[in-house]
Amino acid sequence: MLKNKKIQEYLDNLTKPPGSLGRLEELAVRLCEIQQTLKLRTSPRLLVVFAADHGVIEEHVTAWPSKVTELMIDNIIAGGAASSVLSDLTDTQLRLVDVGSFAGPRKENMTYRFARIAPGTANLARGPAMTTHQFKQAMAVGAEEISRAVASGVAVVTAGEMGIGNSTPAACLAGLLCDLPAEQVTGRGAGADDAILNQKTSIISEVLERNKSLIKSDILSVIASVSGFEIAAMAGFYIAAAEENLTIVLDGFIATAAALVAETLSPGIRNNMIASHCSAEQGHIKILEKLGLNPLVDWSMRLGEGTGALLVMSMLDAAAAIISKMATFQSAGIKDE
Amino acid sequence: MLKNKKIQEYLDNLTKPPGSLGRLEELAVRLCEIQQTLKLRTSPRLLVVFAADHGVIEEHVTAWPSKVTELMIDNIIAGGAASSVLSDLTDTQLRLVDVGSFAGPRKENMTYRFARIAPGTANLARGPAMTTHQFKQAMAVGAEEISRAVASGVAVVTAGEMGIGNSTPAACLAGLLCDLPAEQVTGRGAGADDAILNQKTSIISEVLERNKSLIKSDILSVIASVSGFEIAAMAGFYIAAAEENLTIVLDGFIATAAALVAETLSPGIRNNMIASHCSAEQGHIKILEKLGLNPLVDWSMRLGEGTGALLVMSMLDAAAAIISKMATFQSAGIKDE
Repeated sequence: MLKNKKIQEYLDNLTKPPGSLGRLEELAVRLCEIQQTLKLRTSPRLLVVFAADHGVIEEHVTAWPSKVTELMIDNIIAGGAASSVLSDLTDTQLRLVDVGSFAGPRKENMTYRFARIAPGTANLARGPAMTTHQFKQAMAVGAEEISRAVASGVAVVTAGEMGIGNSTPAACLAGLLCDLPAEQVTGRGAGADDAILNQKTSIISEVLERNKSLIKSDILSVIASVSGFEIAAMAGFYIAAAEENLTIVLDGFIATAAALVAETLSPGIRNNMIASHCSAEQGHIKILEKLGLNPLVDWSMRLGEGTGALLVMSMLDAAAAIISKMATFQSAGIKDE
Repeated sequence: MLKNKKIQEYLDNLTKPPGSLGRLEELAVRLCEIQQTLKLRTSPRLLVVFAADHGVIEEHVTAWPSKVTELMIDNIIAGGAASSVLSDLTDTQLRLVDVGSFAGPRKENMTYRFARIAPGTANLARGPAMTTHQFKQAMAVGAEEISRAVASGVAVVTAGEMGIGNSTPAACLAGLLCDLPAEQVTGRGAGADDAILNQKTSIISEVLERNKSLIKSDILSVIASVSGFEIAAMAGFYIAAAEENLTIVLDGFIATAAALVAETLSPGIRNNMIASHCSAEQGHIKILEKLGLNPLVDWSMRLGEGTGALLVMSMLDAAAAIISKMATFQSAGIKDE
């Protein structure tokens, strides 16, 4: 078992004042703890963007129509989205898995998979978004992506999402699993104005009221009833990744809500997670605190698609390079053996 | 003239909710303003580490002996230092220029230049660290590095430093140029304990008292009298870089103190600067505020050598890639022309 103390000792013997690389050293320690070695691997790496649609958009909780989910699926596959550009830049393989959008199937290839549970969830404001059976089916889709990743030697994985309306289920999950009121977990998503924000807060508040007494007795049903297919798939993805002891980088609010679902269903998998950023959504930091994770950057990002996780991939590379390539005080002749 | 508004309009037409990439968009705007184009160049890039020693170490203001400056010069050249490793990782050319260390000359090559003004400064606690003539000579060494960089097509430059004791002159400069007392600008440098910190604060306080009445009448003499050769060289480097309209990335406390010297001597060059990080040294954020710069990350780094600047080079690449490679709403068919 490679312990924190031994890793820090190794870092303190590199040619720099002890601790002087600050959080880069913390990140190096975290990676060593996850991978249980000083010989870190930060590539090959994989981003899977899970796409799905949401019945709750009937309630006017979002600034964009569901049609955008479909157009963005095509844009991500075609290489024009932020996630496409940043995955290319950071040498991260990108796959998009349609796990429940309103869009029809596209031609499958290395980048695109059609694994739809249903064309969008039911409206969670009026009843359960999905059955627990559907939730498990979506989790299995996520887990399958990890099987595939392991077969190709991937070391670091991240999950992104594309789904107009999905900050509403994420806020419901944050409220229920962190025991917080709607006002503290609801945000503007991809650009809600005040009227939409008020409507969204009101819908989420009702959902929290209806479900919070049930959470002790049947947590899976409650989670499924307020979830999204992409969120369930991400939860399954994280759980399978932790079982394979992969390094998991978390993206933004929705991806982190899915991480909290995963940790709730499979306690301890948070130990494999690194939080990339703290988003502009107020619920995000609350979930990160619940998971005990300290985000690497605070850049007011709120795009999703895995973009925050991609932004910090180079920092993982930097942490690994420090450990593997710096001289020690002995090798540089600064201290005696 | 490419204005902020036009750049933001371009960003708002890329396939993402407007502003949803947060500070990555701010960084893209800043780069476009500096380079006056939407076709950003973030490489080739160059880190010059300026090395020098400091007479003030006689006053026991530092935890490490000057011998470490010499050993680290060799370590940086040999590729074993944090700056060596991170410059290699980020594809940033590294040069080390000895502008005033106690070490003797090494064999010159692409990576190392010997351009020593004197073997260490005089003890700034007892009298002027250097003459204004020496200060200008050191500035010229820094400026020569920019001539060389321009000739090889460099787009982005950063300056790092190696010099045991140099957080003392940097704190003196911060105190004098930001008009702050020693207690607000003095830190632990590369690892001062409480006794050293108290001694250092006391020395800096005396220097500030002695010089602050002179600053209005002869600012260059005051700056030279509390400076270091590497700080003077960095100031000359920045001024020449801004004249060539290069993009300048600032590293930590000492590099930023040199940037404040440069801005004081040549007002307006701050417009070419991007602040990489906020260090653990309390004086750093105060100088950044004086310069009107908002650091990209806050990682409690305090190593110097350009390491903080190297950490964010990939973020500059990300900002450039977003601008140059993302689809627009029209090209993706999400909005009509």
